[in-house]
Amino acid sequence: MTELKLRGVVPPVAVPLNDDRSIDHEGFARHIDRLINAGVHGLFILGSSGEVAFSTVARREEIIKTTMETVAGRVPVLCGVVDTQTDRVIEHIRVAERYGVDGLVATAPFYALGGVPQIERHFRALREATDLPIYAYDIPVCVGVKLPVDMLVRLGRDGVLQGVKDSSGDDVSFRFLVLENKAAGSPLSLLTGHEVVVDGAYLAGADGSVPGLANVDADGYVAQWDAFEAGDWKKVAEIQDRLARLMHIALVPQGISGFGAGIGSFKTACQLLGYFKTNQMPEPVERLSGDNVERVAGVLREVGLLDA
Amino acid sequence: MTELKLRGVVPPVAVPLNDDRSIDHEGFARHIDRLINAGVHGLFILGSSGEVAFSTVARREEIIKTTMETVAGRVPVLCGVVDTQTDRVIEHIRVAERYGVDGLVATAPFYALGGVPQIERHFRALREATDLPIYAYDIPVCVGVKLPVDMLVRLGRDGVLQGVKDSSGDDVSFRFLVLENKAAGSPLSLLTGHEVVVDGAYLAGADGSVPGLANVDADGYVAQWDAFEAGDWKKVAEIQDRLARLMHIALVPQGISGFGAGIGSFKTACQLLGYFKTNQMPEPVERLSGDNVERVAGVLREVGLLDA
Amino acid sequence: MTELKLRGVVPPVAVPLNDDRSIDHEGFARHIDRLINAGVHGLFILGSSGEVAFSTVARREEIIKTTMETVAGRVPVLCGVVDTQTDRVIEHIRVAERYGVDGLVATAPFYALGGVPQIERHFRALREATDLPIYAYDIPVCVGVKLPVDMLVRLGRDGVLQGVKDSSGDDVSFRFLVLENKAAGSPLSLLTGHEVVVDGAYLAGADGSVPGLANVDADGYVAQWDAFEAGDWKKVAEIQDRLARLMHIALVPQGISGFGAGIGSFKTACQLLGYFKTNQMPEPVERLSGDNVERVAGVLREVGLLDA
Amino acid sequence: MTELKLRGVVPPVAVPLNDDRSIDHEGFARHIDRLINAGVHGLFILGSSGEVAFSTVARREEIIKTTMETVAGRVPVLCGVVDTQTDRVIEHIRVAERYGVDGLVATAPFYALGGVPQIERHFRALREATDLPIYAYDIPVCVGVKLPVDMLVRLGRDGVLQGVKDSSGDDVSFRFLVLENKAAGSPLSLLTGHEVVVDGAYLAGADGSVPGLANVDADGYVAQWDAFEAGDWKKVAEIQDRLARLMHIALVPQGISGFGAGIGSFKTACQLLGYFKTNQMPEPVERLSGDNVERVAGVLREVGLLDA
Repeated sequence: MTELKLRGVVPPVAVPLNDDRSIDHEGFARHIDRLINAGVHGLFILGSSGEVAFSTVARREEIIKTTMETVAGRVPVLCGVVDTQTDRVIEHIRVAERYGVDGLVATAPFYALGGVPQIERHFRALREATDLPIYAYDIPVCVGVKLPVDMLVRLGRDGVLQGVKDSSGDDVSFRFLVLENKAAGSPLSLLTGHEVVVDGAYLAGADGSVPGLANVDADGYVAQWDAFEAGDWKKVAEIQDRLARLMHIALVPQGISGFGAGIGSFKTACQLLGYFKTNQMPEPVERLSGDNVERVAGVLREVGLLDA
Repeated sequence: MTELKLRGVVPPVAVPLNDDRSIDHEGFARHIDRLINAGVHGLFILGSSGEVAFSTVARREEIIKTTMETVAGRVPVLCGVVDTQTDRVIEHIRVAERYGVDGLVATAPFYALGGVPQIERHFRALREATDLPIYAYDIPVCVGVKLPVDMLVRLGRDGVLQGVKDSSGDDVSFRFLVLENKAAGSPLSLLTGHEVVVDGAYLAGADGSVPGLANVDADGYVAQWDAFEAGDWKKVAEIQDRLARLMHIALVPQGISGFGAGIGSFKTACQLLGYFKTNQMPEPVERLSGDNVERVAGVLREVGLLDA
Repeated sequence: MTELKLRGVVPPVAVPLNDDRSIDHEGFARHIDRLINAGVHGLFILGSSGEVAFSTVARREEIIKTTMETVAGRVPVLCGVVDTQTDRVIEHIRVAERYGVDGLVATAPFYALGGVPQIERHFRALREATDLPIYAYDIPVCVGVKLPVDMLVRLGRDGVLQGVKDSSGDDVSFRFLVLENKAAGSPLSLLTGHEVVVDGAYLAGADGSVPGLANVDADGYVAQWDAFEAGDWKKVAEIQDRLARLMHIALVPQGISGFGAGIGSFKTACQLLGYFKTNQMPEPVERLSGDNVERVAGVLREVGLLDA
Repeated sequence: MTELKLRGVVPPVAVPLNDDRSIDHEGFARHIDRLINAGVHGLFILGSSGEVAFSTVARREEIIKTTMETVAGRVPVLCGVVDTQTDRVIEHIRVAERYGVDGLVATAPFYALGGVPQIERHFRALREATDLPIYAYDIPVCVGVKLPVDMLVRLGRDGVLQGVKDSSGDDVSFRFLVLENKAAGSPLSLLTGHEVVVDGAYLAGADGSVPGLANVDADGYVAQWDAFEAGDWKKVAEIQDRLARLMHIALVPQGISGFGAGIGSFKTACQLLGYFKTNQMPEPVERLSGDNVERVAGVLREVGLLDA
């Protein structure tokens, strides 16, 4: 089994769609190039932002294929293998393996819950099924359960897991995870998924970040990482403040909530910035329109990404 | 679009497995025959109890195929098409259509949530994709959201939904659903999924029940339905009391929770009663063993299903 | 320690206020008389509907005093002693004892939670502090925790508790409570607090009901009880359907939620029916006004309580 | 109305008890002196850690009296006025005013919930009732609701609130609060209540911290504040790491959860360190005993506070 100790900024890549909701592969490739050129340290495809839950097996394969052909080894690629239970996840792993991804990202089993022993058994079953590095995806808002710190570190120590993508919203637990991981010899690479408080996560000892907002402003997150590497905490926090203001794009839409507001606003910003041809969303989500587009544009102007 | 106004007992069929976790098709067919011979009024395959979340596309097809060949038109068959979002659900619908199921059961989209408008759009998209009757599966414990009464009745009135399988655990909301549905001309067939309080649901005006526990005691639920049809409420409640005591099989297992305790105890009871060859569970769930099997047997003895 | 095996309809008494938010004692006494004349089998003051959480010690005493003087032994009176933790509850018990209430109603400790052992210890401490009967108030929506069935029955068997007012919204758990209580020799009187599904609770074996809606239509709930005693289940359910439609008064208000919509609509209905002089609410709750009053009136007309 | 722009470390003061659960006033005064001598910048009495929910009116007065006499103006004193609804809170305010506290801390109304407009009305009613500075206490785990950022800043701008004690566990929301507050001219003093991630909160722009763990190690939190003032982020984080390891005292107790484990471990540590005579807890909470005391001692040894 190989290792994959990621450090730095690893954006969860948003997927540009055509108006008919098919993937805009050309635009997707351009978006990947833009992120790599901005200096990101890896890419995470088929995460929650990457529409994994909306994508059929065939569509997931399309996304993997275009990604791997476009990246061509320039940065490591993490691939989400998100599905309800073990056997279904392993099917996704087989496809990902075929295209040579560098690592996998898997959540706790969901829909039918069963307690921590069952979650641990799930990750151990995935480890037996593949030699690829596995990152645990801690995302209780989607799967209904928080991954316990002691289980994560035990699975790290046993070589089952190689990292954690933390989208738990629980910074206290993350701090304990960092400390326990260090005490265990740092088997896990620990990445925060909360784009608004990356500075605090770095200060706490995170190895990197997976900010959805980097689809809109990859330069900002890379600059923040560089400031962190240089020990310039004042700058790390200042950049974070600007990025937090930018994150308001996800808060301003009205009459829409959750994924449609969050990723919907990222795509809308990408369209307004000329990165995406459309801000189309996968079924059953409606794209932002009318005043909501104007609200997103307003935020982009406030932070200086769009001309006033 | 066809109608399917189910009335009566429609068990969610549990799936007997071999020790290697493959499906015991012969045992599955025998189990279906047993349920039909007991007088059930329909079958619901690939529900939560029917391991839908654990089943790959190929395995779902296996389950549908054996069911349809075995049932051979004797009772209507509802088929769960449970998956995270619209396009994935439609893939499952295509397979179900091919085998001639009588109706579909679909949940709200899950993993990525987005509010009621998105849920409604999801069900409307499914309606456009198929002519089969669609039952909404209201199961917040699995999908993280409760289906609102007014949305369900609106979708019933518009011909999008033909029924609801209510596993919401909210009897107040169910009462309002019954009343609103009646006021709208009863477009929906309303089935309760809570095997312990079927009597109250019948009294409230439910059209039927989908009791997982009927895998263990179909006779009981059919006898209860007959008593209900005869207006013998004393008997309806007495039978319910006995079935509620039987339901303790799901409460006695220790060190295991959720699906593994619930369906695990149903399968264990089926094995103890000679219905199933094993009580094996799908990965990553462990079957009940040791003292937990003895605890289930104890409950079966208390209610007289096993000899003391 | 005395027993108090309540059976029948025990309304949680709403408190009519003057415009300045002081208690309208004359109106309160009239309301109590009206309920007793309607044939209710007991009264529950200072419950959630009875504004316990809004009432200072002095105000609680006012409510107890007027109640006990007005009731004058005609029906038993349960008194809520709701507060955050043990010592504060015991202070309320002392006042209630002084006025000769017939029984107490206490919740699990709240604000600072601590698990089931702490809840059990709380109820045992209350038992040591008083000889009055104690009913446990199971109301997770207010206190953040569901009282476990086995704890309740154990406390019943040990003489700590004499009853349960179930406002848990969990009819499955209530069914198990009824069965476990019966198996233990029925130490507990079990009352349901869910006015919309009283029929199902009676069928399940409840000893009575505590319907807030009885403030608006006590006759209905008494008639339902009489039908239940006569074994006329068809009538029990028909009356329930009418009461469920009446309960829409709590669902129609817009721009207000929770207590303000629920009790606010009860008070508004009482005012519209001429029972209360105002529909005033305790600080920080605003009374219903404008269109919301009209909406409540519309429901009253639909069920025939107000002329069209 | 006066201002109170707190900056720095403001411990929520734990209350040493005698074995009979009465307050050890002498020990309490000594503890206050110890905290002030360590250099804390204020004290917060009658917070969640300060047993507010367990304390009768008389006991709250005892705590206030001893505090104010002991502090004698050396540092500002915030006083919790925590209770279910407005009128009860105002009663506590009257007592606090009498003793000359410097500011008040009030939560959202709880037990009976009613939406954001009702919460806002509550705080405005408190403002009308007193001239003392009011800090909002954002503690959803106790009151069941998160205070929205826009409401807090609006109340700050309107002079209703002078600060926020954030115990919400939501660092993303806290970041937005800091930014919105700054954009509004910084009307609010923003204090974090999460002792494990104070460093991240300082980096995000917090004005100070309210760390329960400072009862055990006030020196640590004061040293961390000094490092923050000096801009030495490496040291800020290193001290935080040590304090996070110390916080394990709250995680190691077994068979007890919530308040009893958290404050129970703080008191046990204070006893082991010779600060408190007992680790007694208020009814219905049991003090830590046996192995749990040993577990706490083990953590103290690991971080060097106790000799090995």
